[in-house]
Amino acid sequence: MSTFPVILSAPSGGGKTTIARRLLERRTDLGYSVSCTTRAPREGEVDGRDYRFLSRDAFHTAVDRGEFAEWAEVHGNFYGTLRSEVERVLATGRHVLMDIDVQGARQFHTAFPDTVLIFVLPPSGEVLKARLSARKSEDRERLLVRLRNARAELGEVGRYHYVVVNDNLDRAVDQVSAIVDAEGLRHDRVHEVEAQVEGLIAQLEQEIHVFSKDD
Amino acid sequence: MSTFPVILSAPSGGGKTTIARRLLERRTDLGYSVSCTTRAPREGEVDGRDYRFLSRDAFHTAVDRGEFAEWAEVHGNFYGTLRSEVERVLATGRHVLMDIDVQGARQFHTAFPDTVLIFVLPPSGEVLKARLSARKSEDRERLLVRLRNARAELGEVGRYHYVVVNDNLDRAVDQVSAIVDAEGLRHDRVHEVEAQVEGLIAQLEQEIHVFSKDD
Repeated sequence: MSTFPVILSAPSGGGKTTIARRLLERRTDLGYSVSCTTRAPREGEVDGRDYRFLSRDAFHTAVDRGEFAEWAEVHGNFYGTLRSEVERVLATGRHVLMDIDVQGARQFHTAFPDTVLIFVLPPSGEVLKARLSARKSEDRERLLVRLRNARAELGEVGRYHYVVVNDNLDRAVDQVSAIVDAEGLRHDRVHEVEAQVEGLIAQLEQEIHVFSKDD
Repeated sequence: MSTFPVILSAPSGGGKTTIARRLLERRTDLGYSVSCTTRAPREGEVDGRDYRFLSRDAFHTAVDRGEFAEWAEVHGNFYGTLRSEVERVLATGRHVLMDIDVQGARQFHTAFPDTVLIFVLPPSGEVLKARLSARKSEDRERLLVRLRNARAELGEVGRYHYVVVNDNLDRAVDQVSAIVDAEGLRHDRVHEVEAQVEGLIAQLEQEIHVFSKDD
């Protein structure tokens, strides 16, 4: 079976992380790639499981070598997804499911053009605002940044292949799951079908040959 | 919700009709279009339900006027699908599900370019041959025609968006169902999303305006 990366993006608080977690629990044909970061490990975090913890030097060397499918700086720390890590998971026969922001998704899609891009929309502006505000946004300046980011991210919805409205979590999870199923059946992904069809045609040729000679 | 036509094609006996029937029973968001034919009604067939029974003259007039999304002659009788009938079903908020041969699918796709094309493959050449032969093919000449048609149809698999292998009927039905779900979420079909996104952006603009003035 051919495997492919699947990316969920959403404006802050759109529920993409919850959807991804649910799907990873439910489907054994999905895997996740462990990200790299330069930030210090937190209590309980295990290197290679939660993150690969890199020094800044190691991180920037990997950037310079083009080893990241996507990377970004967030609050002074660097985060990135190694191409090799994505390829490792795909090679185990699992699709790679990631939740990733709009800019990261764009970079990632360039690195892996067969990536399926899914945008998760909040059901309404009220819900979006409530979710943005609920994030301990004591600081008005930060809330403003988040609102502006959300606005910019919404403007990128046209780049995505699918749009899922997260007005009901179970339904949204089912919808993303159906997208993964359907994408696995897309003709341009089903490489093994060609061999199968050629085999079928060869068998029919033989049959036709036998029948048409049989006079 | 935007609706679209879905076509299942398969080499003779590929199970496409059974899959279509199961899905029409299961999903209320799918409908079927009643075909036109010039053949005489059989016992129990109702005009407008099983077929629209047309005279040859009426049929050919409709052909000349370009009213058919697809039509063909089969054993001296004419069969066709009216564009208006497809549009009627789509307008009721249901996707139109049809099982149709490869040539008809090609015509239909030209008439309705947003059609989703699904090819149903038999699991093996043996199964395909057995299915072709099981069709009361007393006549060797006819079996040969069927084998040749099947070979030609298999050669068209590249035109289809999805390939479903019918080695397990329940699974094949589930797979076609997932394709319909996913296609309904494709960004290019989700016209109403644009309005929704614009609404979300407008609400965020307002919020940003309020917050940034609030000094």
